[in-house]
Amino acid sequence: MLISINSDRFLDLIGDFANFGALTGGGITRRALSTEDLAGREFLTDYAKARGLEVWMDLAANLHFSLFDETECTRGTVVMTGSHIDSVPQGGHLDGALGVLAGIESLLAIKDAEIKTTLPVEVVAFTDEEGRFGGMVGSQAVTGLLDLSTVADLIDDTGFTLKDAMQAVDLDVNEVGGAQRDLSRIRGFVELHIEQGPVLDSAKAQIGVVTGIAGLYKLRCRFIGLAGHAGTNPMNLRRDALAGMTHLHTRLSELTQSDAVATIGRVDVTPNAANVIPGEVAFTIDLRTTDPGTLKALKAAIVNSGAEIAKTLKLSFEYEELSHFEPVTCSPQVVDIVESLADRFGYSHLRMPSGAAHDMMNFRVVDCKGMIFVPSIEGISHNVLEETDDKDVIAGGNILVNTLVELTR
Amino acid sequence: MLISINSDRFLDLIGDFANFGALTGGGITRRALSTEDLAGREFLTDYAKARGLEVWMDLAANLHFSLFDETECTRGTVVMTGSHIDSVPQGGHLDGALGVLAGIESLLAIKDAEIKTTLPVEVVAFTDEEGRFGGMVGSQAVTGLLDLSTVADLIDDTGFTLKDAMQAVDLDVNEVGGAQRDLSRIRGFVELHIEQGPVLDSAKAQIGVVTGIAGLYKLRCRFIGLAGHAGTNPMNLRRDALAGMTHLHTRLSELTQSDAVATIGRVDVTPNAANVIPGEVAFTIDLRTTDPGTLKALKAAIVNSGAEIAKTLKLSFEYEELSHFEPVTCSPQVVDIVESLADRFGYSHLRMPSGAAHDMMNFRVVDCKGMIFVPSIEGISHNVLEETDDKDVIAGGNILVNTLVELTR
Repeated sequence: MLISINSDRFLDLIGDFANFGALTGGGITRRALSTEDLAGREFLTDYAKARGLEVWMDLAANLHFSLFDETECTRGTVVMTGSHIDSVPQGGHLDGALGVLAGIESLLAIKDAEIKTTLPVEVVAFTDEEGRFGGMVGSQAVTGLLDLSTVADLIDDTGFTLKDAMQAVDLDVNEVGGAQRDLSRIRGFVELHIEQGPVLDSAKAQIGVVTGIAGLYKLRCRFIGLAGHAGTNPMNLRRDALAGMTHLHTRLSELTQSDAVATIGRVDVTPNAANVIPGEVAFTIDLRTTDPGTLKALKAAIVNSGAEIAKTLKLSFEYEELSHFEPVTCSPQVVDIVESLADRFGYSHLRMPSGAAHDMMNFRVVDCKGMIFVPSIEGISHNVLEETDDKDVIAGGNILVNTLVELTR
Repeated sequence: MLISINSDRFLDLIGDFANFGALTGGGITRRALSTEDLAGREFLTDYAKARGLEVWMDLAANLHFSLFDETECTRGTVVMTGSHIDSVPQGGHLDGALGVLAGIESLLAIKDAEIKTTLPVEVVAFTDEEGRFGGMVGSQAVTGLLDLSTVADLIDDTGFTLKDAMQAVDLDVNEVGGAQRDLSRIRGFVELHIEQGPVLDSAKAQIGVVTGIAGLYKLRCRFIGLAGHAGTNPMNLRRDALAGMTHLHTRLSELTQSDAVATIGRVDVTPNAANVIPGEVAFTIDLRTTDPGTLKALKAAIVNSGAEIAKTLKLSFEYEELSHFEPVTCSPQVVDIVESLADRFGYSHLRMPSGAAHDMMNFRVVDCKGMIFVPSIEGISHNVLEETDDKDVIAGGNILVNTLVELTR
């Protein structure tokens, strides 16, 4: 039997929650543990308690919701869903919040349907997914992946410390490790999120059945040549560092196939003057793909290409890894459940990878892990224009609640 | 009969003059009309007068030297040589100064050889070639090419005005136009300059017989796409503005042949973040070649390529001309004289274009115009490491004096 969420209640909750950090002209700024975030947390706590849900905060300031109490959840085996309610500066109101609000609505829908699940369904709003203090602080704390030796040093871009931010909710940053859970007791983790890309919107599909989260290499590369006069150096006697980047960028578009993407996003040219041949170009390469072998092979191919190009163009090439994480493959069981539910609801759907990182990826060792995407109109994300149709938001909620109930069986 | 300069006297003069604006560690900073420049001017005035030369300053603060007096030069027909004694910040001691000092030494060598030329040889140190106040102020004033409506507004990068700078030499910026000469009375204009490029040094040639000065288009171009998440946008759904620049840069290297050069020197990526696909890339293209038809055709090809690439990649492309000047072809007569003199002296030589702009280009309507290059070691220029071998400096002086005498006949 399929459960349905209460669409009106769900859309009202989304509308009300969008007021926290709302910007004139649309969109929101709701940085982790900011005044706006704290007000949003208080609202959700009151909203959930008023409707009979249990609510508690853990030592990493993650906010938990369930029909079961804290002890039942933390000592037993649970099915978990979660996302984040913090936003990037000038972001959209659904990025993260959708998953948390749909989780809360799922609990209410389960309650309304008078279904007694054998295992608790637990909803978590994770602290700082978007990176005010580095990103994914809350979900890394829960999964034991947070570097506890440096957490007390985390600061935002104004120099404000995580330590001080946590004091505002009466927590001690040195106790963040206490939020860690026994992952063997999390039977499933499923996250609903907006796609933040154009795939579903261009395919006119309502539900993205996520097959995995792409792994990533973020490289900082540098070609070094010789700066010189733009007029007096014949093309064949130049050592133009920018030519190195151009060759490598061309190579990137040849190398990326299937779901692999590679992006040169940041470019710094030295000396950066119209009449001077670039002597040095530093740039980033952001490489992502869902297949671990492909990720490794592409990274090697890029680095080798850089060295070959440098040799050909009489440049030198160097690089460093800024970050690296391995792909996460969603459990076939969850993929099948989501896909079959979308069919039963009559929602058009599409299997697809997630190119963006999400809290879910920290739950890679959990047995039943998966993600559900709903379309982002025109693929716009991290922008005040980020939006999703109400019908797709409702579809996402319906798929989430039934997936969670299914996983408790 | 060939005249020879006095090598010791010439090298001494070069050595002494390198003290004005000298930097600890090598190189000089001698901006136009700065304290260092004014001290240098005073030194040259005293040096020349002490050796029997006429010296005067015109209304554009250009310093003139001749064996004839000011009236004989300005009212009659002359053969002129000249360059500049100002430098870029942290430049080399020969960029510009070589041509002026070799001119003064030429006058002394003519005097020593007791040659009475039928026409005056006139040497000019032009004000502000390097651009403290916009560049080529002095040679443009002499040739009537200076925009007199804006000259009083010219400022340096600290906001100091040309007006105030000229008051230091008791001149009124509003009278700069008075420096203009009747170009029909300048029979020849020949400039000796360091190459500022690697051509002579890599060919192991002592004398560059300059065939022309490349014309230039400096374009500011812009590809506009759509910024987006580096992970969530598949390659085929992106509108990556940087890909536009990469395609056009590749096209530039295909388009440039023979003496044409094209440089992307300045690049500004927006938003310039590692995990964001560039939404906009603004960049400069500096295009130079000595053939007027080729220059025009290449500029059209570049602009058309930009538009085609934009269409293919679903971007938009726009550009504006930041500057444009037409190529100057050196007079075959001067080319022949310089080449034949190099042969007679036994100096290895090479015909080549000048990719850099020089004061000479403002004398494009003069009958006998030409340039002589001497090698820059490793092609290094506008740098404290800029240097030329003494033997090449002497060779340049010998070619200059004999070319000037030849042109008075």
